[in-house]
Amino acid sequence: MEQPAIQDQLGGHRCYGCGPLNEQGLQIKSYWDGEETVCHFEPRPWHVGGPNFLNGGVIATIIDCHCVNTAMAATYKAEGRAIGSDPKIWCVTGSMQISYIKPTSMDEPVQLRARVIERSGRKTRVACSLFAKGEETVKAEVLAIQVPWREMA
Amino acid sequence: MEQPAIQDQLGGHRCYGCGPLNEQGLQIKSYWDGEETVCHFEPRPWHVGGPNFLNGGVIATIIDCHCVNTAMAATYKAEGRAIGSDPKIWCVTGSMQISYIKPTSMDEPVQLRARVIERSGRKTRVACSLFAKGEETVKAEVLAIQVPWREMA
Repeated sequence: MEQPAIQDQLGGHRCYGCGPLNEQGLQIKSYWDGEETVCHFEPRPWHVGGPNFLNGGVIATIIDCHCVNTAMAATYKAEGRAIGSDPKIWCVTGSMQISYIKPTSMDEPVQLRARVIERSGRKTRVACSLFAKGEETVKAEVLAIQVPWREMA
Repeated sequence: MEQPAIQDQLGGHRCYGCGPLNEQGLQIKSYWDGEETVCHFEPRPWHVGGPNFLNGGVIATIIDCHCVNTAMAATYKAEGRAIGSDPKIWCVTGSMQISYIKPTSMDEPVQLRARVIERSGRKTRVACSLFAKGEETVKAEVLAIQVPWREMA
């Protein structure tokens, strides 16, 4: 994909899941792909849950950040503005619901796909699925809430 | 607390959140405290979400593991057996619902408290709250599902 990642357009910050400046973080990258957003994540060996299966908490971490970045990008889009332009838009996680349908293999990078299902005032609901080896293994819904922006770095 | 942690009684495995053998994992420890279980977790500096606030994915990770360990310990208790005794009991996460009530400070270790709210067949529902500086900042519910045990190390 040719556009920069949503995270890199939002500017540097240190969030463990998606902050470009957090050297010990997961540094996930999310991109628009039509009306959806996509993220590929390559698990490190220590992200194991069961034998050769990705840990559910690591899955929650990448889903959370991918969905909140999706919500922020969608809010910029709804305002007809470039991601990261002033005044800054920032969202946090209000709630998250995750269903672990089947074990998620660590053999290959996993793919997240998310889409906005509702926007209302400060709230954006985002649905997300995780695919491992082409198979959907996790479904989730995240409620992102817009908050006043402040320096995150 | 004088009893060994539930994780250490269950035996060595490498789960990122709670595996005693995962040197790069979080290695959380959970203990019975009456009818509840408790876990104290000291965030590392790179577990940041917003400025000085604990990342929501790291919160999900410790809640997930604390609740699943609670479910396994409760299943042993219901069978009148010592944690870790044969035949082994193992549970995985079926689903997780998390509400982030307010930001979670990283100034001090956080405390998780969990309790079983329903057991039915292979399913155990566990409610959990996270406290930071004595204040409840996150509420969650985890559905743990018992699965055949296999070597996790």
